[in-house]
Amino acid sequence: MFDRVLIANRGEIAVRVIQACYDAGVTPVAVYSDTDETAKHVRLAAEAHHIGASVARESYLDREAILAAAQEADVDAIHPGYGFLAENAAFAAAVEDSEFAWIGPPSDVMADFGEKTRARTLMARADVPIVPGTTDPVPDAEEVRAFGEEHGYPVAIKAEGGGGGRGLKVVRSPDEIDAAFEEARREGKEYFDNPNVYVERYLDDARHIEVQVLADTHGNAIHLGERDCTLQRRQQKLMEETPAPGLSDEERTAICEAARRGIAENDYVNAGTVEFLYQDGDFYFLEVNARIQVEHTITEAVTGIDLVGCQLRVAAGEKLPYTQDDIDPRGVAIEFRINAENPAESFAPMPGTLETYRPPRGFGVRVDDGVDQGDAISPYYDSMIAKFVATGADREKAIRRGQRVLREAEIEGVPTTIPFHREMLADEVVRANDHTTTYVDGLF
Amino acid sequence: MFDRVLIANRGEIAVRVIQACYDAGVTPVAVYSDTDETAKHVRLAAEAHHIGASVARESYLDREAILAAAQEADVDAIHPGYGFLAENAAFAAAVEDSEFAWIGPPSDVMADFGEKTRARTLMARADVPIVPGTTDPVPDAEEVRAFGEEHGYPVAIKAEGGGGGRGLKVVRSPDEIDAAFEEARREGKEYFDNPNVYVERYLDDARHIEVQVLADTHGNAIHLGERDCTLQRRQQKLMEETPAPGLSDEERTAICEAARRGIAENDYVNAGTVEFLYQDGDFYFLEVNARIQVEHTITEAVTGIDLVGCQLRVAAGEKLPYTQDDIDPRGVAIEFRINAENPAESFAPMPGTLETYRPPRGFGVRVDDGVDQGDAISPYYDSMIAKFVATGADREKAIRRGQRVLREAEIEGVPTTIPFHREMLADEVVRANDHTTTYVDGLF
Repeated sequence: MFDRVLIANRGEIAVRVIQACYDAGVTPVAVYSDTDETAKHVRLAAEAHHIGASVARESYLDREAILAAAQEADVDAIHPGYGFLAENAAFAAAVEDSEFAWIGPPSDVMADFGEKTRARTLMARADVPIVPGTTDPVPDAEEVRAFGEEHGYPVAIKAEGGGGGRGLKVVRSPDEIDAAFEEARREGKEYFDNPNVYVERYLDDARHIEVQVLADTHGNAIHLGERDCTLQRRQQKLMEETPAPGLSDEERTAICEAARRGIAENDYVNAGTVEFLYQDGDFYFLEVNARIQVEHTITEAVTGIDLVGCQLRVAAGEKLPYTQDDIDPRGVAIEFRINAENPAESFAPMPGTLETYRPPRGFGVRVDDGVDQGDAISPYYDSMIAKFVATGADREKAIRRGQRVLREAEIEGVPTTIPFHREMLADEVVRANDHTTTYVDGLF
Repeated sequence: MFDRVLIANRGEIAVRVIQACYDAGVTPVAVYSDTDETAKHVRLAAEAHHIGASVARESYLDREAILAAAQEADVDAIHPGYGFLAENAAFAAAVEDSEFAWIGPPSDVMADFGEKTRARTLMARADVPIVPGTTDPVPDAEEVRAFGEEHGYPVAIKAEGGGGGRGLKVVRSPDEIDAAFEEARREGKEYFDNPNVYVERYLDDARHIEVQVLADTHGNAIHLGERDCTLQRRQQKLMEETPAPGLSDEERTAICEAARRGIAENDYVNAGTVEFLYQDGDFYFLEVNARIQVEHTITEAVTGIDLVGCQLRVAAGEKLPYTQDDIDPRGVAIEFRINAENPAESFAPMPGTLETYRPPRGFGVRVDDGVDQGDAISPYYDSMIAKFVATGADREKAIRRGQRVLREAEIEGVPTTIPFHREMLADEVVRANDHTTTYVDGLF
C-alpha cells in the first residue's frame, strides 16, 4: 500500500478520500486554493499544500501546480476525486509519466471512454446494448424513414458535429422527417460547418440506471449492483437509490452483467460506472464515468464495501479483495444531495455561511460532507453541502428513514434542497416509481 | 403499529427511540425535566411534556409523573430506554395495568431475571452454564474446602444478603478458608443481619461476552450474535466489539445458542441481553439485561437490523420479521463511549458546555448522541456525550477506522474519553485481545 497520497480535489470528495486514506493506514495530503485555506479537507488532512487562487483553473484545474505539490509533498500517488481533473485523460497521462501512481483508470482507457462514439463502439463489441442508431452519416431522408420503420419512433436526427441541442431534431412520425432532416443539416452546416447527420432512437421516457464496477490489474472485474438515478433536473442527479426499484431480477442480472463484460473486455482498471438508459424493458449504454461518482455511497451502504478503499488497493497493484460471489447487497439505500440552492429559483446556487449545521445521525444513516458549522459554501465551486444516505430493509423503510433524516437535519444560513427532497419523497409519482429523467423538469 | 409512543428517558437513548419511532411512522412524544427543557430529545420529538425537577427521582424516575404525561399525551405505549425505570419491574407492571403498552419484557419475567439467584436457577433449568456454586447456605468451612477441591480455586465466599463487595471474600488456597469463612459470616451479620454464606467459583481472569436476543409474543426467539465488552473500568463498559474476537466458531455457536435457549424457555419477550463470563474456554451465565443496551448499536451495524424498531413491532404484537437463518452478521464493529470524563482523574464526570462538537462522519461510521454543539452535559445525569461506532471488514480495519473516527471528532468545552480510547486502540494487550475485565483497573 502507498505511504502518502495527494488528493487533488476539495469539498466532500476530498474529505471522503482523506478518510479512506486514514482507514487504510495511508497519510493523506491535501491541496487548497486561497479561499479553502481553512476548509475541512485541509483541517482533516495530515498536511496541506497551497496550489493557487480561488478560481478553479488557477488551482484545482492547474495540472502543473498539483504536480508540483505532489513533488513537494513527496507522495506516492494522486487521487483525483470526481470533477475537476478526474476525467482528464491528459492529466492522467501526465501523472502516469511522473513518479506518482494514478488512482484511476489507465489514461488510454479514459481517453477511449471519454469519446462518446468510440465508447459506443467499444461497448457494442462487448455485446453491451447501445441505443440503435447509425455511426456513419445518413445520405437522405429516405434512410431516416427506413430507420424509423425498423426501430420505431421517436427518432433523433443529430448533426455529426452537434452538441448542446444544436443540430438535434426529434421526429415522432414519418411525415415530420423531410423538414427535420433538412433543418438538422442546415444547423449542422451553420453552427459546426458540417452538414452530415446521423440518426438514433430517441428515448424520451427513460429511466437512468447505472452499474458500479471495479477492476484490478490482475484481470479481475466485478460489478457491485446498479443504482437508479432517474430523479434529475436538467441532467443533474438529485436523488439516487439502489437497487433500482423497477427492474425484474432478469433485467437486473442482464444490465449488471453487461456492464461488467463491457469493462472486463476493454482493459478497464479501478472503479467506474457504466450508465444506461432504460425504457420499455430494454436498456441502452449511455456512457462510462471513469472515476468514483458522487453517489457511490449508496452502493457502499448496501454492499458494505469501501469503494474508495478499493481504489487505493487496486492502484497500489493489489488484487481485488472480493470476487463477484462476495457481492451481496442488503436492503435499500437512498442518497439525497443537499445543496445550497433555492429550488424555487431554478435551483440557483446560494453561497453563504452555514450558521447552523447539524447533520442527521443514528441507525441507517450516513453523512458525507466537506463542511462544519461556521464554514462557508463558496461561490467559486459547486454548491454541495452534504450527502445524506438513508438505508432500510426495503424501499418503504428507506423512504421513511429518509423523511426522518431530512426532518432531523438542521441547516441555517443558506437555503437548501432539503424541502425539495421532502416534497419528492411525498410525491406520488416518485413513490410509485413512475417518474422518468424529465419528470422534475416538468414540475418547475 | 402504534400511533404514538412516549419515551420515558432522556439523552442519546431517548433520541435513538425517537428516531426509531419516526422510522416506523410512529409519532414520538418526549418527557423532560427542568434542566432538559431545550435538550435534543425535546427538540427532535413531535411533542414534549414536562415531568418535574432536574434530579432524576423527581422526573425520569417519577413513575406517577411519567404515567400522567402518557395520559396527557394520549399515547399508545411507553418505551423506557435504558437506565432510570427501564429495569423496574414494578413500573413495567404499572404500565401493563394501565391503558398503555409496555415496550419491554413482561413485568413478571423482568422480576424473575432481576433477582440474581432466581435468574441462575431459571437459566440452569434451560441448560445454560452457570458459574459453579451453591444456592443454599454452606454450614461450615469444611464444605467450602470440598467445593474448592471439586471446582478449583479461587473461590468466592459470599454473604447471602451481601452486595457492593461487602461480605465477599476471595480465597486462593485451602488454608485461607477458615479465616475468610468467619469474616464473611461476620460481615454478613454486621451489615445485612444475615450470617449465611454461599460459595461460587471466582473468575478473576475472565472476559465479558454477551448475546443479543429478540423474542416475540408468538413463541419466536432468536439471537443476533455476541458482543465482547471486556474493556471495562470498575465494571463500567468503555468499548465494545462484535463479533467477540477470542471465540472459536464452536464456542460462538454454543454461547449464542445457550442464550437463545435461555430466553426461549423462560417466556422472555422483546429485546434483551444475556451476559456471560468467559474464561479458559468455558462460559458462565452472569445475568440478563431485560432492556435495550447502550451497545446494541454494534449488533445493528453488523446485522443491518434495527433493534429498537423490532422492539416497537414486537410490543405492538407483530411477529419478529426475521428467523434465525436471516441473521447474517457482516464485518466487525466497535463502539466507543464518549463521555465527558477525565480519565486522568479517575474518570471523574466533568459536566460543562460543548463549545465545539463535530462528530465523525463517512463510510463505516455511525454516531448516536443526545446533544448538539452548544448543549450542556448536565451534572444531574450520566456524562455520556456520544457513541461512535466504527465498522470494518475485519478487526484490523475496524480498529483503523476507529482510530480515524477518534482523530476526526472535535469536542471542546469538556474533557472526554477520546484520548483514553486512542490509547486503548494503540495498546498491545488490547490489540492482541489479551485483556480481561480488570485490565483497565490495573492501568490506573
